[in-house]
Amino acid sequence: MSNQVSILFHSGYGHTEKVAHHIAAGAKGAGASVNLVKIDADGNLSDAQWEMLDKSDAIIMGSPTYMGAASWQFKKVADASSKRWMTGTWINKVGAGFTNSAGYSGDKLSTINQISVLAMQHGMIWVGNDVRTSQYDVANVIPEDAMNRIGSYSGLMTQSHPMSSAEMSPPSGDLKTAEAFGKRVAELSAKLLGSK
Amino acid sequence: MSNQVSILFHSGYGHTEKVAHHIAAGAKGAGASVNLVKIDADGNLSDAQWEMLDKSDAIIMGSPTYMGAASWQFKKVADASSKRWMTGTWINKVGAGFTNSAGYSGDKLSTINQISVLAMQHGMIWVGNDVRTSQYDVANVIPEDAMNRIGSYSGLMTQSHPMSSAEMSPPSGDLKTAEAFGKRVAELSAKLLGSK
Amino acid sequence: MSNQVSILFHSGYGHTEKVAHHIAAGAKGAGASVNLVKIDADGNLSDAQWEMLDKSDAIIMGSPTYMGAASWQFKKVADASSKRWMTGTWINKVGAGFTNSAGYSGDKLSTINQISVLAMQHGMIWVGNDVRTSQYDVANVIPEDAMNRIGSYSGLMTQSHPMSSAEMSPPSGDLKTAEAFGKRVAELSAKLLGSK
Amino acid sequence: MSNQVSILFHSGYGHTEKVAHHIAAGAKGAGASVNLVKIDADGNLSDAQWEMLDKSDAIIMGSPTYMGAASWQFKKVADASSKRWMTGTWINKVGAGFTNSAGYSGDKLSTINQISVLAMQHGMIWVGNDVRTSQYDVANVIPEDAMNRIGSYSGLMTQSHPMSSAEMSPPSGDLKTAEAFGKRVAELSAKLLGSK
Repeated sequence: MSNQVSILFHSGYGHTEKVAHHIAAGAKGAGASVNLVKIDADGNLSDAQWEMLDKSDAIIMGSPTYMGAASWQFKKVADASSKRWMTGTWINKVGAGFTNSAGYSGDKLSTINQISVLAMQHGMIWVGNDVRTSQYDVANVIPEDAMNRIGSYSGLMTQSHPMSSAEMSPPSGDLKTAEAFGKRVAELSAKLLGSK
Repeated sequence: MSNQVSILFHSGYGHTEKVAHHIAAGAKGAGASVNLVKIDADGNLSDAQWEMLDKSDAIIMGSPTYMGAASWQFKKVADASSKRWMTGTWINKVGAGFTNSAGYSGDKLSTINQISVLAMQHGMIWVGNDVRTSQYDVANVIPEDAMNRIGSYSGLMTQSHPMSSAEMSPPSGDLKTAEAFGKRVAELSAKLLGSK
Repeated sequence: MSNQVSILFHSGYGHTEKVAHHIAAGAKGAGASVNLVKIDADGNLSDAQWEMLDKSDAIIMGSPTYMGAASWQFKKVADASSKRWMTGTWINKVGAGFTNSAGYSGDKLSTINQISVLAMQHGMIWVGNDVRTSQYDVANVIPEDAMNRIGSYSGLMTQSHPMSSAEMSPPSGDLKTAEAFGKRVAELSAKLLGSK
Repeated sequence: MSNQVSILFHSGYGHTEKVAHHIAAGAKGAGASVNLVKIDADGNLSDAQWEMLDKSDAIIMGSPTYMGAASWQFKKVADASSKRWMTGTWINKVGAGFTNSAGYSGDKLSTINQISVLAMQHGMIWVGNDVRTSQYDVANVIPEDAMNRIGSYSGLMTQSHPMSSAEMSPPSGDLKTAEAFGKRVAELSAKLLGSK
């Protein structure tokens, strides 16, 4: 019995996509079969992509934070998912969320809350980030390689500077946290599958 | 000196548009010059509509709540407003928000919060709904003509049943509350104008 | 192997406590061993109550919504739970939330979000309300016996009129939804236990 | 006609209090008469403190973020403010919010939202932080002296490391932003007073 994890995301400039790949690596490391389901620039998914989501055991959903919420392309998919709401197709799938933006806070929690509310409307089971942040220094600057550098729990938050390319950013701590996050979601999904 | 109030909204099935008209009536009653700025089905505004927003003293923003957040069409306009963020064009304009959905709660607060965060990113001054809800009955059903029937403060919430047409719904209390809301926003906008 | 579900709650006037009992009935019906962990009027728990929470497989947390958030008594317990945060004691427990207030919306989503964020900081797995709301009438008043009458997904929302006693209120639909909610949380908790 | 600005806050370890003093300095610089209204360790205010709030033109409310929300002491005051809700005493006062915690995000937006919802229930007019964050570097670390270093708009966010004393932390950029925030709130309050 396979553990199918999909990573559904929109990425405007490549940062969110980079994070999606690190989440995927973490989920694969936990033995899951992983698919990246990328939303196109017009906010659409193909029929094959929708079918992939429907048969997934877990859906990890990500978007950049633009103007304090998920991108309109991500929201277009969320609105289109109302068909699955009507039929209850996604009930009891595992759900999780991630977002990237330029600021440390940058209202990213607003996006994570939006994705969480979407998952809850679908009757999904929500998994956040369990990495504690207590290991860092006394200084007022948290090291770039710190785990859960941004201090997020309801989902994964990463930060990339507006003028830096996706090659340079987000920093290593954020990417390692993405891997741990993918691993955690995949493991919970496997547990629930194992009990079926 | 004119007090220019714009009502920026997307409406999928006519309910939100109906509410927008009642807000407009309230704002006009308070002496404001009011414009309805309707977002089209593709999430676009014309140049003339953007200019109207830029010269407004207050922008009241509304959207249906779909899957726990503003519609993608509304969000497309919010994302496009990032140009105004860069230039700070909307700083100190008065902002307010409204939303309609089928459920009593229906995660409408999530949409109001989303619009509020957008307004805050733009540096706007936020006005909510000050109608108290204490006047209602002991019964477990709040009358259809009760003011602030839904019990919302951070913005205006109205409710319309999914199978009812915009002619029948939202009920009278919600529409009267919309008028009071338009009046309140217009009055605050006039006050701030008067002090310039 | 027992499935231990705790219902941690504060109740100011008895409505939230009444809901807690209906949630308990639902969880018991699903075979769980259920404990009501009631926060006292000073916001304290006994050592035995803390131990009960620590050994629970699921913690369903509830509070009235006062001034748009959980009561200070509930928050005092949440603040005291930071000791469990330090040690990670509650990681991977199942978490869920419920709240009651006088208004239909009444900013109850703000309280549910607060409880969800608390659960996420503890690394818990969040379960919401999967009852669809589509079965109701065309009229603008949702029947008192409708399931998920308030239209909430991220947690359970019930509504009771300010001047009605806990004997009369919340109405039957809200109480039946509370039972379904308790059943759902207990079933997920059993599933996760079964896979250990 | 005096412009009375109160800063209502709870502080657990001195960081939030330090920020309150910087906000006060900014508000004084804008010509306001400023009072610090400090909530005690039991969550109480004296009668004189309540009267000061009642006669203020603006109330800036602050709390540390503990377990993803305002401290229970702050909430105890918020709950006690329901008497002012009944009488509408705080309607049309200017409201604003601030919070401090150890993480960059640290769910501080959850606390700001909580304070905003409280202000909205009271019918207050909400002012956020209008400092743009675009001036920073390409590097993945935002300088300690950057304005709006944390990237917050709905209110003021500051960050202080858990093991550093209030003398060392929050860093200079956060404190300068606090001053600008106090100035902004005081100026809006003066504008509204001037129009009376």
